Amino acid sequence: MNDHTEIGTLNVCVLGCGVVGTEVVRYLRQSTDELAARCGARLELTAVVVRDARTPRDPAVPTRLLRTDAEAAIDEADVVVEVIGGIDPAREYILRALQRGKSVVTANKALLAVHGAELYQAADQAGVDLGFEAAVAGAVPVVRGVRESLAGDTITRILGIVNGTTNYILDQMTTAGLEFDEALREAQELGYAEADPSADVDGLDAAAKTAILASLAFHSRTSLADVSVTGIRSVTRDDIEAARQSGHVIKLLAVAEQRQDDGARGIAVRVHPALLPMEHPMANVYGAYNAVVVEAVAAGTLMFYGAGAGGAPSASAVLGDLVAVARHRVTGGRGPAESNYARLPLLPPEQVLTRYQMRLQVRDVPGVLATISTTVAEYGISVETVRQVVEDEEQALLVLITHRASDEALAETVRHLADLDEVVQVLSVLRVEGY
Amino acid sequence: MNDHTEIGTLNVCVLGCGVVGTEVVRYLRQSTDELAARCGARLELTAVVVRDARTPRDPAVPTRLLRTDAEAAIDEADVVVEVIGGIDPAREYILRALQRGKSVVTANKALLAVHGAELYQAADQAGVDLGFEAAVAGAVPVVRGVRESLAGDTITRILGIVNGTTNYILDQMTTAGLEFDEALREAQELGYAEADPSADVDGLDAAAKTAILASLAFHSRTSLADVSVTGIRSVTRDDIEAARQSGHVIKLLAVAEQRQDDGARGIAVRVHPALLPMEHPMANVYGAYNAVVVEAVAAGTLMFYGAGAGGAPSASAVLGDLVAVARHRVTGGRGPAESNYARLPLLPPEQVLTRYQMRLQVRDVPGVLATISTTVAEYGISVETVRQVVEDEEQALLVLITHRASDEALAETVRHLADLDEVVQVLSVLRVEGY
Repeated sequence: MNDHTEIGTLNVCVLGCGVVGTEVVRYLRQSTDELAARCGARLELTAVVVRDARTPRDPAVPTRLLRTDAEAAIDEADVVVEVIGGIDPAREYILRALQRGKSVVTANKALLAVHGAELYQAADQAGVDLGFEAAVAGAVPVVRGVRESLAGDTITRILGIVNGTTNYILDQMTTAGLEFDEALREAQELGYAEADPSADVDGLDAAAKTAILASLAFHSRTSLADVSVTGIRSVTRDDIEAARQSGHVIKLLAVAEQRQDDGARGIAVRVHPALLPMEHPMANVYGAYNAVVVEAVAAGTLMFYGAGAGGAPSASAVLGDLVAVARHRVTGGRGPAESNYARLPLLPPEQVLTRYQMRLQVRDVPGVLATISTTVAEYGISVETVRQVVEDEEQALLVLITHRASDEALAETVRHLADLDEVVQVLSVLRVEGY
Repeated sequence: MNDHTEIGTLNVCVLGCGVVGTEVVRYLRQSTDELAARCGARLELTAVVVRDARTPRDPAVPTRLLRTDAEAAIDEADVVVEVIGGIDPAREYILRALQRGKSVVTANKALLAVHGAELYQAADQAGVDLGFEAAVAGAVPVVRGVRESLAGDTITRILGIVNGTTNYILDQMTTAGLEFDEALREAQELGYAEADPSADVDGLDAAAKTAILASLAFHSRTSLADVSVTGIRSVTRDDIEAARQSGHVIKLLAVAEQRQDDGARGIAVRVHPALLPMEHPMANVYGAYNAVVVEAVAAGTLMFYGAGAGGAPSASAVLGDLVAVARHRVTGGRGPAESNYARLPLLPPEQVLTRYQMRLQVRDVPGVLATISTTVAEYGISVETVRQVVEDEEQALLVLITHRASDEALAETVRHLADLDEVVQVLSVLRVEGY
């Protein structure tokens, strides 16, 4: 181990002491010597800012460090770790820190996805670091992968499973044959889903992460409002069963792609449940695990996989950033600044092309398959496969998988199909992603 | 796009113009504006150093840039990319560049695994960057992942498939039922294996990459000589079939682990064929793809996956490093220096504990299973599963999988088993890795 009298000290203030904050504090105190050797400076934990210092805490958190005066604690620090989450007061605290020349490490996806530009600018103006590996997919180093490892390449698409709660719920629906409500209730009882599950099941948490990845991948500012979001509430056991029969699983996917449609280059960013072929590497990502596939012109297809949430994995990402920003404090330089030179426009979601699975309940009359196929073809959509299941003497279930079609053309087709005499009901329409 | 009159220029010299060099040149020239916006400086390709300037080249490489005077080309550059491979003259070129204050990006695993310490020191003395993401697993960003993303964590083990040639050969043996020689010949005919396949099939290429990863993960210098290496020449179709019957596939694995055995903390670094459970995420890594699993105390299990070799994927890694070192040239600072503060000793290979699969040809006499089991137990090794296949009236095949045992105890057991009257022959002994 180095002789510590030779190296300096950096004061670290941790804002927030929930699940992630507690683990950050634990590792900071456990690995003091290791971290000092890696940073070139001792990381001295000087304050853990909480709302109520009297709340009982994990014994790893020393009571003497607990404080409620965030502003003063920030001002006394060299590096500030923000793990409070949410917009306020995290936003003011981070801005205060950056404006006073402190480097910041945050795990706050919601804040970055809405106020990212403001935070980047404050960091750039002060010439300090803003690290946020923990904001996307926990310990999975996809922020650094996209921002630094692929900095010399052209990323064309990112496909990710970035929300563990919805992944767990869809898994349970798939393996235990539960309906959404039952699987959600079970996830809530096990503590995998919140009492108010909206941020997870309505796709907002995934959307925030997708916006962050899209900004980095395409060098274009992308915020939460730019993401088309559909959650998993409307996915049924029948959808999952129909997907299984055609060799697919249903996952909540984060998709960010750069496209050149009819001459206009732009990006499309969305979160929605989608069918994924069972042989796709992401089809076997279960429970709380996250996986992100990045496709780039030179690199081809890369996948990053690991624990997407939880105290210790998120703390690992925070500490990795902390070592980098501390090293910069000691030896000079800083991590990459905001890169938004490309300023690619958002493509209209209705023009985005994907494959679809449609499930239709139809009358089992002669020629029904021909009528449906003709109708779909009239809208310029070609059918890849169609499967007919006879449900009783009068009705049948048709499952169609289409080739790539625009959201717009698909919606029009569905409207027209619903009006046909032969069609009892359009049961569901889901995107098919993968290769 | 930025106004380029405002930003400076960095002269880039590429040493070597083989498969990787050609792709580096192609992307450097194709993405000039993009790279300038990302680096904050224009990357001006000033020289491509080759042995013979008259050899016909890909049209992406401008003839006017081809040179044979490496020293002068290096001296005129700001950043040097080394993609010649091998020890000489790559070593002298890189040292010359570093000593003259040029940052270097290299894909040279063989050189780093043998002379890494010398190169790191030269870079540290000059205060410049030495980037080598492309040296391990092509485009898969595992160097940056281990060195930077996990810099705040404690890595306990790395398990990798880091050689595409052997992975392809083992795949063919598994799926087409070929013997090693046949699969190798096929790989050579398809250009996946060299005429002299030794570096790949004897595990040396994988060993070099493992040494590099171990150095980074454990903050301890590790070189090629520290790696215990067994290649895949002795793996038979029967081994693969026996593995399949117990739910395993055979892969050439790179293993680097930090262990605390009997009080002594140290590292074990090895490359060998091993059984991997079919449900392990690396079991489905086929052909030229690479995958590296990194286990860390806080992060848990992470996996990095992607194209492990080839011109374009390696060029992606080179260009990612190039953007980083160029950014440092423009804004100051540098990437992480060598970190070897931990100086963990190498554990004696014979003391390393793993599980094993043994295949024995035995006489089919009453009590043979009991005799074998007792003998194995006498050496302190406990048997997890044993499977007996009757081959004819007189002989049977026994397949044992053991619990964790030392290499030493296992070797002694095998010697003793071979001496038993009941044992006709010890057919093979292979490690079992995984969780």
